[in-house]
Amino acid sequence: MTYLDHAATTPMLPEARDALVAALGEHGNPSSLHASGRRARRAVEESRERIAAAIGCRPSEVIFTSGGTESDNLAVKGIFWSRRDADPARTRVLTSAIEHHAILDTVEWLTEHERAAGEFLPVDAYGRLTVDTLQGALAERADRVAVISVQWANNEVGTVQPIPELAELAHQHGIPFHTDAVQAVAQVAVDPTLVDALTLTGHKLGGPVGVGALVLGRQVAATPVQHGGGQERDVRSGTLDTAGIVSFSVAVDAAVRSQPERTARVRALRDDLIARVRDLVPDAILNGDPTDRLPGNAHFSFPGCEGDALLMLLDAAGVECSTGSACSAGVAEPSHVLVAMGADPARARSSLRFSLGHTSVPADVDALVKALPGAVERSRRATGG
Amino acid sequence: MTYLDHAATTPMLPEARDALVAALGEHGNPSSLHASGRRARRAVEESRERIAAAIGCRPSEVIFTSGGTESDNLAVKGIFWSRRDADPARTRVLTSAIEHHAILDTVEWLTEHERAAGEFLPVDAYGRLTVDTLQGALAERADRVAVISVQWANNEVGTVQPIPELAELAHQHGIPFHTDAVQAVAQVAVDPTLVDALTLTGHKLGGPVGVGALVLGRQVAATPVQHGGGQERDVRSGTLDTAGIVSFSVAVDAAVRSQPERTARVRALRDDLIARVRDLVPDAILNGDPTDRLPGNAHFSFPGCEGDALLMLLDAAGVECSTGSACSAGVAEPSHVLVAMGADPARARSSLRFSLGHTSVPADVDALVKALPGAVERSRRATGG
Repeated sequence: MTYLDHAATTPMLPEARDALVAALGEHGNPSSLHASGRRARRAVEESRERIAAAIGCRPSEVIFTSGGTESDNLAVKGIFWSRRDADPARTRVLTSAIEHHAILDTVEWLTEHERAAGEFLPVDAYGRLTVDTLQGALAERADRVAVISVQWANNEVGTVQPIPELAELAHQHGIPFHTDAVQAVAQVAVDPTLVDALTLTGHKLGGPVGVGALVLGRQVAATPVQHGGGQERDVRSGTLDTAGIVSFSVAVDAAVRSQPERTARVRALRDDLIARVRDLVPDAILNGDPTDRLPGNAHFSFPGCEGDALLMLLDAAGVECSTGSACSAGVAEPSHVLVAMGADPARARSSLRFSLGHTSVPADVDALVKALPGAVERSRRATGG
Repeated sequence: MTYLDHAATTPMLPEARDALVAALGEHGNPSSLHASGRRARRAVEESRERIAAAIGCRPSEVIFTSGGTESDNLAVKGIFWSRRDADPARTRVLTSAIEHHAILDTVEWLTEHERAAGEFLPVDAYGRLTVDTLQGALAERADRVAVISVQWANNEVGTVQPIPELAELAHQHGIPFHTDAVQAVAQVAVDPTLVDALTLTGHKLGGPVGVGALVLGRQVAATPVQHGGGQERDVRSGTLDTAGIVSFSVAVDAAVRSQPERTARVRALRDDLIARVRDLVPDAILNGDPTDRLPGNAHFSFPGCEGDALLMLLDAAGVECSTGSACSAGVAEPSHVLVAMGADPARARSSLRFSLGHTSVPADVDALVKALPGAVERSRRATGG
């Protein structure tokens, strides 16, 4: 089986799996005061320090959550509520049109339900939110912006956003800046100190599913989304998943340390994949920024094809990929990312994402290259393309 | 080490741990369309069916979450928002004064932030919310109640609430009824068809931490608390944790099936513990309902003692227990549960919870009984009691 869907979820790193299995043998709630509880608490705090050291933030800024979706919800809703409560005029929420649904749907809900004014800023043909665009949005009524949220890198087309410049602009206006970096951490250089809040998650970098974090600056106030015992700085409640957190921290540490050599290797494979796909299917269109993109991402439109049909044909040939975000897979609508980039619906629907990761080998590219031409041909015949 | 804190978290059942470790070797996002994704989806849906069969509900009613706190937040906020959006006059949220903080803090936030009218109904000296009390609260303006939430059993003193009668009363008024049953499932008979929403979680019954469910009736509308890809019936978003869900389902199944014999054994141990503690410390007060309580729960006040000091002295003797909820451990305030039951602050602070579970053996009771008198004596001397 050729797995080219690492952006949806990537297999666990052996060291992260070992850490998880070892930690399962321990018990004790990290909030308990007895010896078992204190042991669990120590494991959690060491994990917090491990993550902070790996990505470059303070341990106290790491808020453990159940994953990327929760972190995104907490950042956007939490900062919005907190800022609007302090100043009722701050109702604007700025984001890009190509965010993950965890951001898009959150901003839409705040708009429909919580009297926010959500704005989905346009991107260019490469899927980039330019500094000029954000500057334009801030030219007037910047004092009414509660929060800005822009992903570090796009999950579908892989384009890396100019986060340092965007965050700097936000800060010139005194506006907290959040970034969803689930695809970016351990893939490209990510500096959490540039932003006020940053989302990362385990299962995109070799850790377990169901564990993530929001790196939240100490100075940033956020209203909780999930109330209860107040375990995480009174910002997030819920029993801490010690084993998952330990495993997550081991994965973050290993993935960040291995990043330079791993991504160089993955990028070379990906570049080979792109070159060979273009060779075999000359009219294939590479979507996203041709150079400033995630090292493991290759995203194509195949004119005259249906992405879903292509996906199934490749799957039958043992090659696993995606038409876009797994989180909205099965939905027949064309990708909002490609549409925002200016693609017509037919081109948007003709697209496939191949995403490589730590287990990828040259044979994976070979397998895709072998299966692709026949799949494209059959798909084109089926659609009369 | 004698572990008498199963109510905080209980060790994983071997079959649940084995299922988790086996599932870690698989990958694939259950929302992906390719073979790995479909395999993960199948594992998730089989887990949903396993849980539904074990507890007696429909598979489509099982909404996977990250645990009890999230399920509680989703039930109370989600049903409140949904009902109030349909009828702005429905602002009342009824709950008991002795709920877990996941409910209390949620209702408080809705009251302070979302224009709800939260009401914390009083309980009797055993920690029971009587049908009369709820009837009184519904005697007027019942049409303004958005949702009622009452725990199935109390996490501190173990009292089992009259949920069938309370839910029946709510339904007579057409009001959705939620119950936090994290302590009750697999401990006492729990029928989710009696209520509209029911919270359960893995780590209280031998499954992993970080996985739980909200059993939500098909007819019950709930606004999402966590927005995104809409993975769970568009009510809950976030990548499904396949391995955790499989393990959780195995734990629920095993714990429910073993309930009769396991709880009979645990109850006998617990009764022995209570008798021997009373024998050794004649003025110890058993808190909670003397008969209608969780089989593993024994909760005492030790007049003249500080619970925190007792806990530490017992811990030093190798006996692990709790002063109340682990979720608010370390907080110096007396338990809101005991205060609501009419205990004065001194008595509330003199309390300890001993909670037994599937790994408990007679030697655990022996160890407690051996260590307790000395600890009580030292604690009394320290406080001058």
